[in-house]
Amino acid sequence: MSRFLKEAFQAIEPYTPGEQPQGRAYIKLNTNESPYPPSPQVIRAISGEEVADLRLYSDPETKALISAIAETYGLRAENIIVGNGSDEVLAFSFLAFNSKEKGVIYPDITYGFYSVWAELFGIKHRSIPLGEDFHIDIEAYLAPGENVAIANPNAPTGIALSLAEIERILIAHPDDVVLIDEAYVDFGAESALSLIDRYENLLVVQTFSKSRALAGGRIGFAMGHPALIEDLSRMKYSFNPYNINRLSILAGAAAMKDTAYFDSCRQKIIATRERMAKALEPLGFTTLPSLTNFLFTKHPYLSGQAFYKALRENGILVRWFDKPRIQDFVRLTIGSDQEMDTFLSTLEKIEKELRL
Amino acid sequence: MSRFLKEAFQAIEPYTPGEQPQGRAYIKLNTNESPYPPSPQVIRAISGEEVADLRLYSDPETKALISAIAETYGLRAENIIVGNGSDEVLAFSFLAFNSKEKGVIYPDITYGFYSVWAELFGIKHRSIPLGEDFHIDIEAYLAPGENVAIANPNAPTGIALSLAEIERILIAHPDDVVLIDEAYVDFGAESALSLIDRYENLLVVQTFSKSRALAGGRIGFAMGHPALIEDLSRMKYSFNPYNINRLSILAGAAAMKDTAYFDSCRQKIIATRERMAKALEPLGFTTLPSLTNFLFTKHPYLSGQAFYKALRENGILVRWFDKPRIQDFVRLTIGSDQEMDTFLSTLEKIEKELRL
Repeated sequence: MSRFLKEAFQAIEPYTPGEQPQGRAYIKLNTNESPYPPSPQVIRAISGEEVADLRLYSDPETKALISAIAETYGLRAENIIVGNGSDEVLAFSFLAFNSKEKGVIYPDITYGFYSVWAELFGIKHRSIPLGEDFHIDIEAYLAPGENVAIANPNAPTGIALSLAEIERILIAHPDDVVLIDEAYVDFGAESALSLIDRYENLLVVQTFSKSRALAGGRIGFAMGHPALIEDLSRMKYSFNPYNINRLSILAGAAAMKDTAYFDSCRQKIIATRERMAKALEPLGFTTLPSLTNFLFTKHPYLSGQAFYKALRENGILVRWFDKPRIQDFVRLTIGSDQEMDTFLSTLEKIEKELRL
Repeated sequence: MSRFLKEAFQAIEPYTPGEQPQGRAYIKLNTNESPYPPSPQVIRAISGEEVADLRLYSDPETKALISAIAETYGLRAENIIVGNGSDEVLAFSFLAFNSKEKGVIYPDITYGFYSVWAELFGIKHRSIPLGEDFHIDIEAYLAPGENVAIANPNAPTGIALSLAEIERILIAHPDDVVLIDEAYVDFGAESALSLIDRYENLLVVQTFSKSRALAGGRIGFAMGHPALIEDLSRMKYSFNPYNINRLSILAGAAAMKDTAYFDSCRQKIIATRERMAKALEPLGFTTLPSLTNFLFTKHPYLSGQAFYKALRENGILVRWFDKPRIQDFVRLTIGSDQEMDTFLSTLEKIEKELRL
């Protein structure tokens, strides 16, 4: 830290991303990437000619990408804005609508970035404990006056709210922005997208990083009433207008249009998840009911940290959070069937070695 | 605008990027892109296999890219941070070091984004008029107490300060951050990079968008004392850690390593610029002395707007700024020799039509 850094930032605790090992080849089940490559259309879209065109700026309006999203979801372009990953869209949303006066509430166990943005932008914030079973108790979210941010399904628990529950929150907050972060929605939960025409206070955020297998392309998007999107656009044009590079616009548009491939991959991942959840049950694991591409699960005898370390030593990366209440869990990304089989055999090996 | 937008943002005037036409094929001399494609090594670096790997997150530390920059400039990795275009690095710098209490000064005619970030982040700011000849009068920048942001060479004038002048500013501001925005430095000006070991208050920002022909890849970087870089890293990890996509990391590293190609392109652009400046002189143009890849120039009879419009109607885009003092100028990017010849013949045609 330098002596020049603004005082308010000196105590901030930045977000800690999952490990992205550059050397040893791990089986990577720690950051919820897709085990399947992006659509073959993505690979076709990025030709040598397109790479040569990198000399030119990208379209700051990202029209080609927005029109692909609009067509897929039956929206108009003015309902959509694209960001450099959903993190950027979420950051713009936190900046635009929350403040020192207008606070925001979110669960105590959720995407760790919400509190980081709140600190960074000097936003009043309050976290609401999950219930004993790690469900979001929506009764605690029904008092108006504060904005709401909810990951649905929630992370790292994997548990989803129903559309009816989301709508109850929206109705309770006519003068507050309700942000639904749907990073994992394509793996079985109900999207709130169908509600954006009726609720001008609803912002739905999704990403290409999980179900569209483009984590490395950094593409996220928000959908909502045109006025909300205009606000986010104002943030973008006041921060970094050329926020999406040329190749990611191409990749994103191609991935969005290939709905058949998208459906086939997510169906495979859902099937593998169900198989894994079933396989862990007789082994004594406690696994939360997931509608995502990961399982949040607890080994019967090992602490979360010990289990994480043992897996790591055996070449498998999972995510462990050193936080109260969830320290005994690890978050296990659903990989390919083969990767999951390796996980199960590694588990057997670890238990044998530890004589469990 | 929605009724939910934070009040402080309702009056912000966002940055207006240059036109990026998606339809009609203009000769694009309006956003200072390179007329030459990126290094052939860039095209080689982006294989189908790398595109398939987009399923994986990019390296948040952007190690491959930082190490290419470090090697080229004889720096250590801890002297460097990479952003989603230099705009993101500049935005992080404005956020990290300036505040309501700690103000920042910059020229009244300069990169238009400085004042936008100042407004966005609620920063105290003061702009200092350029001299009559559009030079930065550094005497006005020598009172300590405020941070300093200077584009060197300045934009859109193209005029550069000497290294000795930059050093005088650094010496005068031991307790303030001096940010030197060197977007155009590779076209003939002196970089302040040689001073970063001696001045812990110096931050040098550069970009891949101009001299490295990767505007569409969105890559910028800051160089400075490790403590300053750590501060910017704190901003990045509190805002958007995966800020560079996989393909741009590859493209940037390949472009940075191909120094021969880089040198050959910028020498060509410098030669074309000098030829153009000479060609405009006998035609009665007033052209500021440029050390960039553009010329800021004034037609002898036409207003800036009229000249801009006439060129546009004839298929040539240049940049015109509707701002006091510079309204009579246009900013003309140095294209290929052929594009410049077309510019000159178009100019002749326009003058004939208007009977000038």
